[in-house]
Amino acid sequence: MPLIDSSIKPVVLASQSPRRIELLKKIIDQFEVQVSHVEETLDTDDPVTFVREISRRKAAEIAALFDHGIIIGADSIVVSNSRILGKPRNRDEAIEMLTFLSDRTHQVYTGFTIIENPGGKIHTDIEVTDVVFRKLKPWEIERYIDVAQPFDKAGSYGIQDESAVFVEKIDGCFYNVMGLPLTKLYNSLKPFFKL
Amino acid sequence: MPLIDSSIKPVVLASQSPRRIELLKKIIDQFEVQVSHVEETLDTDDPVTFVREISRRKAAEIAALFDHGIIIGADSIVVSNSRILGKPRNRDEAIEMLTFLSDRTHQVYTGFTIIENPGGKIHTDIEVTDVVFRKLKPWEIERYIDVAQPFDKAGSYGIQDESAVFVEKIDGCFYNVMGLPLTKLYNSLKPFFKL
Repeated sequence: MPLIDSSIKPVVLASQSPRRIELLKKIIDQFEVQVSHVEETLDTDDPVTFVREISRRKAAEIAALFDHGIIIGADSIVVSNSRILGKPRNRDEAIEMLTFLSDRTHQVYTGFTIIENPGGKIHTDIEVTDVVFRKLKPWEIERYIDVAQPFDKAGSYGIQDESAVFVEKIDGCFYNVMGLPLTKLYNSLKPFFKL
Repeated sequence: MPLIDSSIKPVVLASQSPRRIELLKKIIDQFEVQVSHVEETLDTDDPVTFVREISRRKAAEIAALFDHGIIIGADSIVVSNSRILGKPRNRDEAIEMLTFLSDRTHQVYTGFTIIENPGGKIHTDIEVTDVVFRKLKPWEIERYIDVAQPFDKAGSYGIQDESAVFVEKIDGCFYNVMGLPLTKLYNSLKPFFKL
């Protein structure tokens, strides 16, 4: 059994991201998945405020549906030189984003929010990881987009897929780059489960 | 198709580690897997010499069986405070190793060797990644060993499994911690495939 026993309290993940589901399974044996419909826009230039608030909205939307349990929301963005990179809308945008990230360091921010019902006790935190991309050749970028179709991914890449070889090094939590900062989330969940 | 096209030259991985096989698939579409029987012992205290030489022996053993192709060998060890951690022989050793790694930084070293036949052209390199473990509770260590059975893993853990939440942060190549430094290996393979 993973470290957290959800028979004590039911857990709901407010995200249908296959990567987040896969990661959460490493620490919680069973949980429900609910899709949030929060618009991922906010009038701020501050990455921390952004991911914190969007993760809170996602968790709050789903928490309204559950009288009893722990609800987890999360949101990730990619930032470099004050530019926030979301999901690419098409192939050209993906090419442009990866060309921008080439030979450069960027940050991946993930905000997460835990809400417990009944009562609505709330905990929010963020994690940030530095990611250094090596210099990419145009054919590598195009081949990658054709293979991986990274259109559902902030920054146009998923570190766990074929873009693994774009990454020179990371500094911080790896799983944060995948979409969920597992260690920080686990530590934050502990008090809710009296661990 | 991944970045390397093995129809140009056949590739052989001299390792049956499921993690290495999974990782190599991210950069090479097809390859053969061969088990090496090299004894993983060497009379040296230097981690770099150790992983470099063992990876060379693994690749050389398999290269002797193939007249034509690219053979890849690799070897990983975990090191902290000059202590080299191999695979635990039993539950008590696994508990001891994880207790030792708790609340401490260690290094994961992987050496890899590429041999091309005919001709025996050889390339060897190593990668090292810092891994910081948070302070672990005894029950977390015991639960982890029961769930993950990490007896085939140097240092008694696999960063991709339930021990993900033992890791506070890493500095360097994540895939190196899993057993194969993908970006460095890919960059080293490029000249063999004229990329």
